[in-house]
Amino acid sequence: MKIGAYGEVMLRLTPPEHLQLEQTHTLRMAYTGTGVNLVGNLAHFEIESYLLTALPDNRLGKAALANLKSLGIQTAYIVQQHQHIGTYFAEMGFGARPTEVTYQNRKSSSFSLSPIEAYDVKQFIEQVDMLHICGISLSLTEITAQTAITLAKEAHAAGKIVCFDFNFRPSLNQEPGKKEQMKQRYEEILPYCTIVFGSTRDLVELMQWKTEVSVSENETAFIQSFLAHYDITWFAGTKRQVINHEKFLSGYLITPTDAFEIPKQRLEVLDRIGAGDAYAAGILLGFAEGWSLEETVAFAIANARLAHAIQGDVPLTTRKQVKQLLEHPDTDLIR
Amino acid sequence: MKIGAYGEVMLRLTPPEHLQLEQTHTLRMAYTGTGVNLVGNLAHFEIESYLLTALPDNRLGKAALANLKSLGIQTAYIVQQHQHIGTYFAEMGFGARPTEVTYQNRKSSSFSLSPIEAYDVKQFIEQVDMLHICGISLSLTEITAQTAITLAKEAHAAGKIVCFDFNFRPSLNQEPGKKEQMKQRYEEILPYCTIVFGSTRDLVELMQWKTEVSVSENETAFIQSFLAHYDITWFAGTKRQVINHEKFLSGYLITPTDAFEIPKQRLEVLDRIGAGDAYAAGILLGFAEGWSLEETVAFAIANARLAHAIQGDVPLTTRKQVKQLLEHPDTDLIR
Amino acid sequence: MKIGAYGEVMLRLTPPEHLQLEQTHTLRMAYTGTGVNLVGNLAHFEIESYLLTALPDNRLGKAALANLKSLGIQTAYIVQQHQHIGTYFAEMGFGARPTEVTYQNRKSSSFSLSPIEAYDVKQFIEQVDMLHICGISLSLTEITAQTAITLAKEAHAAGKIVCFDFNFRPSLNQEPGKKEQMKQRYEEILPYCTIVFGSTRDLVELMQWKTEVSVSENETAFIQSFLAHYDITWFAGTKRQVINHEKFLSGYLITPTDAFEIPKQRLEVLDRIGAGDAYAAGILLGFAEGWSLEETVAFAIANARLAHAIQGDVPLTTRKQVKQLLEHPDTDLIR
Amino acid sequence: MKIGAYGEVMLRLTPPEHLQLEQTHTLRMAYTGTGVNLVGNLAHFEIESYLLTALPDNRLGKAALANLKSLGIQTAYIVQQHQHIGTYFAEMGFGARPTEVTYQNRKSSSFSLSPIEAYDVKQFIEQVDMLHICGISLSLTEITAQTAITLAKEAHAAGKIVCFDFNFRPSLNQEPGKKEQMKQRYEEILPYCTIVFGSTRDLVELMQWKTEVSVSENETAFIQSFLAHYDITWFAGTKRQVINHEKFLSGYLITPTDAFEIPKQRLEVLDRIGAGDAYAAGILLGFAEGWSLEETVAFAIANARLAHAIQGDVPLTTRKQVKQLLEHPDTDLIR
Amino acid sequence: MKIGAYGEVMLRLTPPEHLQLEQTHTLRMAYTGTGVNLVGNLAHFEIESYLLTALPDNRLGKAALANLKSLGIQTAYIVQQHQHIGTYFAEMGFGARPTEVTYQNRKSSSFSLSPIEAYDVKQFIEQVDMLHICGISLSLTEITAQTAITLAKEAHAAGKIVCFDFNFRPSLNQEPGKKEQMKQRYEEILPYCTIVFGSTRDLVELMQWKTEVSVSENETAFIQSFLAHYDITWFAGTKRQVINHEKFLSGYLITPTDAFEIPKQRLEVLDRIGAGDAYAAGILLGFAEGWSLEETVAFAIANARLAHAIQGDVPLTTRKQVKQLLEHPDTDLIR
Amino acid sequence: MKIGAYGEVMLRLTPPEHLQLEQTHTLRMAYTGTGVNLVGNLAHFEIESYLLTALPDNRLGKAALANLKSLGIQTAYIVQQHQHIGTYFAEMGFGARPTEVTYQNRKSSSFSLSPIEAYDVKQFIEQVDMLHICGISLSLTEITAQTAITLAKEAHAAGKIVCFDFNFRPSLNQEPGKKEQMKQRYEEILPYCTIVFGSTRDLVELMQWKTEVSVSENETAFIQSFLAHYDITWFAGTKRQVINHEKFLSGYLITPTDAFEIPKQRLEVLDRIGAGDAYAAGILLGFAEGWSLEETVAFAIANARLAHAIQGDVPLTTRKQVKQLLEHPDTDLIR
Repeated sequence: MKIGAYGEVMLRLTPPEHLQLEQTHTLRMAYTGTGVNLVGNLAHFEIESYLLTALPDNRLGKAALANLKSLGIQTAYIVQQHQHIGTYFAEMGFGARPTEVTYQNRKSSSFSLSPIEAYDVKQFIEQVDMLHICGISLSLTEITAQTAITLAKEAHAAGKIVCFDFNFRPSLNQEPGKKEQMKQRYEEILPYCTIVFGSTRDLVELMQWKTEVSVSENETAFIQSFLAHYDITWFAGTKRQVINHEKFLSGYLITPTDAFEIPKQRLEVLDRIGAGDAYAAGILLGFAEGWSLEETVAFAIANARLAHAIQGDVPLTTRKQVKQLLEHPDTDLIR
Repeated sequence: MKIGAYGEVMLRLTPPEHLQLEQTHTLRMAYTGTGVNLVGNLAHFEIESYLLTALPDNRLGKAALANLKSLGIQTAYIVQQHQHIGTYFAEMGFGARPTEVTYQNRKSSSFSLSPIEAYDVKQFIEQVDMLHICGISLSLTEITAQTAITLAKEAHAAGKIVCFDFNFRPSLNQEPGKKEQMKQRYEEILPYCTIVFGSTRDLVELMQWKTEVSVSENETAFIQSFLAHYDITWFAGTKRQVINHEKFLSGYLITPTDAFEIPKQRLEVLDRIGAGDAYAAGILLGFAEGWSLEETVAFAIANARLAHAIQGDVPLTTRKQVKQLLEHPDTDLIR
Repeated sequence: MKIGAYGEVMLRLTPPEHLQLEQTHTLRMAYTGTGVNLVGNLAHFEIESYLLTALPDNRLGKAALANLKSLGIQTAYIVQQHQHIGTYFAEMGFGARPTEVTYQNRKSSSFSLSPIEAYDVKQFIEQVDMLHICGISLSLTEITAQTAITLAKEAHAAGKIVCFDFNFRPSLNQEPGKKEQMKQRYEEILPYCTIVFGSTRDLVELMQWKTEVSVSENETAFIQSFLAHYDITWFAGTKRQVINHEKFLSGYLITPTDAFEIPKQRLEVLDRIGAGDAYAAGILLGFAEGWSLEETVAFAIANARLAHAIQGDVPLTTRKQVKQLLEHPDTDLIR
Repeated sequence: MKIGAYGEVMLRLTPPEHLQLEQTHTLRMAYTGTGVNLVGNLAHFEIESYLLTALPDNRLGKAALANLKSLGIQTAYIVQQHQHIGTYFAEMGFGARPTEVTYQNRKSSSFSLSPIEAYDVKQFIEQVDMLHICGISLSLTEITAQTAITLAKEAHAAGKIVCFDFNFRPSLNQEPGKKEQMKQRYEEILPYCTIVFGSTRDLVELMQWKTEVSVSENETAFIQSFLAHYDITWFAGTKRQVINHEKFLSGYLITPTDAFEIPKQRLEVLDRIGAGDAYAAGILLGFAEGWSLEETVAFAIANARLAHAIQGDVPLTTRKQVKQLLEHPDTDLIR
Repeated sequence: MKIGAYGEVMLRLTPPEHLQLEQTHTLRMAYTGTGVNLVGNLAHFEIESYLLTALPDNRLGKAALANLKSLGIQTAYIVQQHQHIGTYFAEMGFGARPTEVTYQNRKSSSFSLSPIEAYDVKQFIEQVDMLHICGISLSLTEITAQTAITLAKEAHAAGKIVCFDFNFRPSLNQEPGKKEQMKQRYEEILPYCTIVFGSTRDLVELMQWKTEVSVSENETAFIQSFLAHYDITWFAGTKRQVINHEKFLSGYLITPTDAFEIPKQRLEVLDRIGAGDAYAAGILLGFAEGWSLEETVAFAIANARLAHAIQGDVPLTTRKQVKQLLEHPDTDLIR
Repeated sequence: MKIGAYGEVMLRLTPPEHLQLEQTHTLRMAYTGTGVNLVGNLAHFEIESYLLTALPDNRLGKAALANLKSLGIQTAYIVQQHQHIGTYFAEMGFGARPTEVTYQNRKSSSFSLSPIEAYDVKQFIEQVDMLHICGISLSLTEITAQTAITLAKEAHAAGKIVCFDFNFRPSLNQEPGKKEQMKQRYEEILPYCTIVFGSTRDLVELMQWKTEVSVSENETAFIQSFLAHYDITWFAGTKRQVINHEKFLSGYLITPTDAFEIPKQRLEVLDRIGAGDAYAAGILLGFAEGWSLEETVAFAIANARLAHAIQGDVPLTTRKQVKQLLEHPDTDLIR
């Protein structure tokens, strides 16, 4: 199985040692984004993985490309045009102080300005068996929204599996009318999707999904009615909890007729950004290899826990590491 | 309301990544001190804040000045003379290993050698509504003790609110007769003070306060008798606890007729130095803006918790950050 | 004399130790821009210096503000709105390898999007005696061009000295018609200007200046005809030469009736970005304090030479440092 | 009492800030090894401490020597020959992610290639009162195994106290026949040993020790039968537990006729590599100074807890630090 | 044209800022080697470039692989086996102090231990048009020598162009008989080679080449007799000179019937290691694209000069950069 | 021959990469001082070398001690008392910008406060064959001046060779009467000295030496008259020149009857602080080993040139390195 993702590459800049921006003159630099995280992780699982994106046609684009290659991502479908890469600063929190992310102009990035014609879409779709699209592309610019929808449509038509991650952030969609517009775009893309990452909140708040059973009565049945409507095969997501200052994570995987949720597990967090993409990568691996729901979720949650313990967005985990955690959860030193 | 503080600026040097001094050839450098922490934090709360201090008349003094300005502190009353800045090294502890602070020659610093005549005291007092003095000035040198006492006296005479922080460290006052001398100096300054930061221990051990109720019977009444004696309006402080390897912090605020103590809260500590000054800054803000005892202490403790989660002494917190913690205490990522 | 500059604040990101972007995961971060460099340097010369600019209303804007304050710049007229700061990456060259600058989206920056109404222009002009405008504002966006021209006009009307730096970069103005548009804008602003920084090339290529004497015949007379036309008092600039792999710098200062050019001096270059602003700062200081042409150029060139020997754009030089170089040009250690 | 250890010096390379090897271009460098850790720690306890080892005869050997000296280790018996130092990379784990150690070619190191004739063994044995040997020498190469056994024999013959640390790692001894060979070597060295560090698992799995009482019946009696057989005076070790994601450490000390085990204590771990050597150093100190079992184990466990809170392998603890932890276990700031 | 190189990947560790090993606790880490440098550079010139090598089957091998990919090198023929990577430390010199390289155990590296059977040689040779072999493989181990010779033979038989770099270091071949053995191996491989990098010294001292014209009479004719003998098409190399503390570089390219030598050019050196490989990469590019001798040498020398101005071994230069230097040799800032 | 030096240990703090103090939050830390430099260098030349000094009795003193040991210095005569170590900040210059040194309170350091009774002088003098004293001790405090003079007297009485370095800095001796007092102290110590480091300027300006030949007539004869008066065997020093922006160094060595001056040599300077001590170390080595004047000066100047090319004060050069420079002055890479 080969996978391709359409998504933005961002430059992430992080002050060292939990410092705030005013406290440092140095930053750690990395290249990231939902697509990067996902296919980067799958490449570490030895899945042939492609990224469809646009990078600036300058030194930064070149540096980004070198970094994507080092993750094992296939870069044949990456174009270089325009001059700007979306950027964000991550001031790492600690204890009572939350991590703060500050975005810099994503709407003018090479990715945001590149229409579908910029890419060799036909060959890209032929190349891959699965296509991943992130909901952020639906909210970024009209250009990326239309590109995402068209890609989903064409991949679906070509018999490929389309995976879609809701990744809906209310805070980024607060302009008047934006949420309604987003609902329409989500409705437009979902019919082409086979695997969907999302939450009950997405269905209730964004999609305003209503059915005969209410969420509070039977959450699973509520979601399954949604899956049936859109002919979605797998619906997966995670739940976070904080109990008495300790963090926990659980994950679920729901099919139109079945469901599995793993009991919550203790989280120790070095860097939580990108950890959701690790869960998604685990789910896609299970799907690609025909694992059971239980096996798939167990792997995906272990992968997500490891991703919380890795600096940066991109989960660099291997199958061996995940297996090690599943089999020897208390080992803290390997030599 | 404008505030001014009289206090020493120190150079803090910290090995990176919890290393000890023998393990590293690099140090992180910052400028700090009770006055710096306090007015730096208040400047972040948008209070016009001044520092009255002396810095060396050399490259280090210049660098210190640049750093104070970057904190938003008004530097018009800072003088540059002599050649030395007080310095301390902070080897950051972890788990069972405590943080170790090593002071370098504070008694010969520009601050310690500068008498009241070195400053434009008259205009400084006119400029501010509140004056903050730290007890460390009373123990540093005869010069700083007399400057502190005279400042308090003159500010009080000019109708300004004088705030005083006991900040009494027995370990720094162990020469014979030093404790008795300190008691006299504290007795001399207290009649001019409206807001005082301290602890029961300070009253019992340093001030040897005695009244009809004993501390163990009624701690609040004991403190209130002290407030009545010195005509102090607000008396505030924090209490630290370690329960089963977990750290907790609570805070109290006592008036001659009222008292409030907030229940203890869990502390996760990145760097505890300076966190007490964050509590004081919160209290002064509440006083300046006429908040209730409850509001004031809740804000001050949240501010102190955040300060424990920030590298370095100076609390860089804003009102928005404190409000965020009060309203969404479990949020660990903002984007 | 007080000076104010209208100009963009940029974030500069520099790999350490001459590394290229692909070779490092860390960057050095600083805040810069022609206006920042100029008023930052003048503040180090103890001139009260203001910046009129717009910073993003987010954590980056806050960090930028803290850095500007640390330079001694007065920030009362800086507004915070929008979300983006112009950014550039500087890969430091060495020997045969030139330094490479990569700009990131300046046209969507808070500065580029902020019209004149965003600022308290009236009070700003009242506050200062001199106003500095950089030609880059004329080429950035329509908004910044109109703001620059209006500012010049109003300052001139209020009897203030307007300084203007051509700073014309052909490479940044290559769209069709852009150069012609630029010529018109330069013609529009020049009548309000008293001090102008530029080169013969600017007059010939951009302004297409023609007069009875040709440049090759008499460069000074050629320039003086330009000065006479626009009623410009001082026209200044530098000349760079490379002779046998060694770099040299000279500088000139021309009035309608007089001219001085200093013999070329050897340059050793640590970081040449921003060094032109150091020359300008020296010239403005000479003007403000009524120095002779000779004194002014000597100071300005020494200042520029020092700026070439300082990391980063902002010349942090003091009068004492410049004087030291003028009096003891061979000293390499001061203790 | 003077102590000497025979053991390998390794170069440890550690990525900063919990990064993995792919994520960084910088490494932290230190010199380490069981012998280094042990005598380095004892030197910090003011015990005259020697190392018998071989370092490469090149710049790395020189740098290693400088680092050993800085730990206070006596280097008179260290030889420099051959060209290679054993190296390992430690990627520091966090939470669910274990620390991963990757060894580089230890079998060709200067130490591994240096036979007993390379050292001035006679004078070394005369110089010290106790000799420490690590089991790793028995498994490294034939050369180091024979050197270790001969040293133990000669030291014992000279009336010196021989200390031996099992330090048996099944993962490093998986070649066919290796474990049986190791058993023979351990049987060969044990008759010369007075103090032994090990675990029940070592006795059962490696030594295949059998006696009338089974381990599960009476662990202490089982071990004591082993001590009686080999005439071992002290047998010491630690036990690690993870309970509900929290880590705990306890330690025991067994003589042929007595035994003490300290209740488990909470561990907060910055870097656990080398912490076992801190326990051993504490035990040897107690032996050297004639402390009771209780005193010795309490000191050794406190020392080991501190070692877990120090970056790097070498425990840099002093008697004062250990005493501080024993007397004020909750202190987190000393100034 | 596609190129493949057979060569060792080494880990290079460099102290920052010209520090020596004793002066630092941090190192900069990179992956390098003649083959890496050459194909890495050619990949930057947009030539499809392959490496045939063996990396350890552990975390270091994985990290090395990620780095090779980031250089744009095709890694399909790289195998992972054994546990060790060759390592060297480079203490960067300055002025009178030479750079010092310390090698760590190259003879036990995965590369040195991997025989030709470990690789998919058949497909590799089919894949490429040119094969590059470095003389170091002839001196490293018997295994690498035989692998190199067999590869050259088979590639030649398959009609591919074989390039060979003498890269003979007398200092690394001082064992008795080693030089004679080396001579034989060189004689064995040369008949298969079309492009050879070397120097007159190599021919005289190592190959003991003798012909009717002596070197001192006519160096070119001397070399051409050698070319004729071995049917070599291109013979290229550089010459270094130091004149009055300034460094210069020139380069030559000789065919059996023609020759070109470029006048010496000034060198400013940031890091000279690997710069020879940049010259070779330029020559191979010229050969692959059918350039004239003059064009080829001019490009190769400019490339080598840039490589001297880049940190690390791998020349990251692009065609655009080389062209920029050739056309604008004095430009020191591009923006 | 064994050597001991009496001198202050200072903490040197240096911003990285030529940054100024305002530009960085990190500093490089090292321990230095004339005595440290000298005996540290001699230890690298395999001379048994001792330091007599006082370090603070705190964590900084401990860290300093570890660093001195790593240099190979014997520390048996170092005492730890008081709380302060002298400190200096070195902002590294570049090109036109001189290096700036800022001292912090040396007069209150542990060294400055420790009288001769604090040391085990008797045994120290017995232990060594040569004693080195630096003129800075004469100007620091009354305590260090008297200690230095007494040490010289007693060492001379015990038949040891006393070496004295004028190291007179007019800038540090500008208080009224200070220079006259210094002259007296120098006159007091010189009769005990056998080897003296100084310059003609020291003799003329400080010692106000007058004799029948004037300096301008015959500098050597002028100095020899001084040597004869004080019975000095060797008088050595260096001369610095700047010619056309290039730096040069020469060195001389004068006996009462002989003299040698080496022609000036080109200097490339990474860090010139401490390089004078490298010259002195070379001279002492030549004296100790009975070399000719020519050999001695050649070695000392080569050593000083290398020291200019090493970061930090302490010359870490070995005999092998110096010999390498003398024999192969143009080698820039050793492998």
